[in-house]
Amino acid sequence: MGRLSIPHPHRLLLPSPSRLHPSSDASTIPRRSRFSPSAHRQIRSELSLSCGSHLIPHPAKVDKGGEDAFFVTNHNGGVLAVADGVSGWAEQSIDPALFSQELMANASGLVVDEEVSYDPQALMRKAHAATSSVGSATVIIAMLEKDGTLKVANVGDCGLRLVRRGQVVFATSPQEHYFDCPYQLSSEKIGQTYQDAMVCAVELMEGDMVVMGSDGLFDNVFDHEIISIVSGSPEVAEAAKILANLASNHSKDPNFDSPYSMEARSRVRKYFQTSFLFYVGIVYKGPNDITVIVGRIISSSDSREVGYETT
Amino acid sequence: MGRLSIPHPHRLLLPSPSRLHPSSDASTIPRRSRFSPSAHRQIRSELSLSCGSHLIPHPAKVDKGGEDAFFVTNHNGGVLAVADGVSGWAEQSIDPALFSQELMANASGLVVDEEVSYDPQALMRKAHAATSSVGSATVIIAMLEKDGTLKVANVGDCGLRLVRRGQVVFATSPQEHYFDCPYQLSSEKIGQTYQDAMVCAVELMEGDMVVMGSDGLFDNVFDHEIISIVSGSPEVAEAAKILANLASNHSKDPNFDSPYSMEARSRVRKYFQTSFLFYVGIVYKGPNDITVIVGRIISSSDSREVGYETT
Repeated sequence: MGRLSIPHPHRLLLPSPSRLHPSSDASTIPRRSRFSPSAHRQIRSELSLSCGSHLIPHPAKVDKGGEDAFFVTNHNGGVLAVADGVSGWAEQSIDPALFSQELMANASGLVVDEEVSYDPQALMRKAHAATSSVGSATVIIAMLEKDGTLKVANVGDCGLRLVRRGQVVFATSPQEHYFDCPYQLSSEKIGQTYQDAMVCAVELMEGDMVVMGSDGLFDNVFDHEIISIVSGSPEVAEAAKILANLASNHSKDPNFDSPYSMEARSRVRKYFQTSFLFYVGIVYKGPNDITVIVGRIISSSDSREVGYETT
Repeated sequence: MGRLSIPHPHRLLLPSPSRLHPSSDASTIPRRSRFSPSAHRQIRSELSLSCGSHLIPHPAKVDKGGEDAFFVTNHNGGVLAVADGVSGWAEQSIDPALFSQELMANASGLVVDEEVSYDPQALMRKAHAATSSVGSATVIIAMLEKDGTLKVANVGDCGLRLVRRGQVVFATSPQEHYFDCPYQLSSEKIGQTYQDAMVCAVELMEGDMVVMGSDGLFDNVFDHEIISIVSGSPEVAEAAKILANLASNHSKDPNFDSPYSMEARSRVRKYFQTSFLFYVGIVYKGPNDITVIVGRIISSSDSREVGYETT
């Protein structure tokens, strides 16, 4: 391959607004007291969430609504959750939707449980324990604390992106046993539990956009596409719909070199420890259930705008 | 490009150990009470940190030790911090090392300040306020709380990876104004402040490996290389040295298609919204300062092993 040399990488941020990316132009950021922790805390304590969501089932599973399940509630600061039923159960004549749907129904009912208040891992634990269906699912649960902290518990390859000023500043990483076999809460002992969850919390700022979804979204849509869509669309429900449709269109295009395809190719390269197989082509996974939840972090003074729309 | 079709993606985790990745083999995970929150808390409350670090200066800046600065301390649960002086200041005849070094010296002295206890963003704020040198730096600070929570504050393109059971389960995302111009704490008003930091917390488990470093590490070493090295090396100081040397070797190889090169190429593709430029070749950044800190999360009953080694 050819080579482009950058002999003098220059990374100094100069006080010339024209050199800055428009969305990151420091001169457009509201003046803030630079070292005032009280002002900082005050800003964060006023945050709340406006959410929209959109689910597109696998084309062959439209009748039953697919095998993803989710819920969004404004309980306390807000709770967002997605579960993706593991499709392999169908080979054992078990409907993969049953486990994910029951898990989400249980979780939705348990948000009022005092023991799970602001603790997504505890909610995962209780919802899993209450689920009696046979099956398994990848799961992500996020809760907004009133002080502006988003707490996340994640098992498997559902995901979350936090978009701030035109860039992803926070992203979950998928957990898997091997490629295409994610960690999963299960009815079987071989599966994972809440104890295997990646648990983290991230402090939010006003204007942040949270994008959460099943692997049907993240396998098919690049982060830069997510950034472009949520930065350009003021309406959360509309943003969720656009993202889901984009994921759906990409998933039906065997010639689209998707994030999934690129990841699969990088695994091949890594496995053979060589660049010889760099020219392995597109790896096509095909359609999947696609769930997208988009949340905008707004100041509570604008809380009259808080809405939860699902389609 | 060619196309590999996967018509029946199968992601069910079957109770056959032979199908699992060895490092993730559920059958090798110690038996745990599945739904015991008290056991879970008990495990987490016993965690502490064993750290090693290694710094390799830019080959042309060996005499002064480069422009990265870092410190590691066992204060409270442990504090890790890296600052990378922005090299562009040299064009204004200002030594880029002064700001990063003073910032880290101030931060190191301030860890005993009660106001910054377990709050890396507060430490960043106070250390920045106390720094009088002209210059700017990217900064990451991580603090381990005694209950096993790692709190992180990050401004710019230093980074952190959390490796658990052979995979990256948590990773920071760089923040930048545009490619190669990261967010930075600065002596100038145009720069960022602690308020621009991405602030998050992640719950640790025994055996987790924390890898923190300047962009000299993450520009030159892939996550799968980090996983391979920290999973294979029992000694944290040795792991840090191996990672730094690998980054250094890659940074001197104009033919190595590094993470930096791949990111640069993806920006080109994104900018032109076309795959036509897919064949843009390697983008060579050249040598850089490289700082690596590797921490292993151990149970406090093994705390006699806790050590802090820096080279």
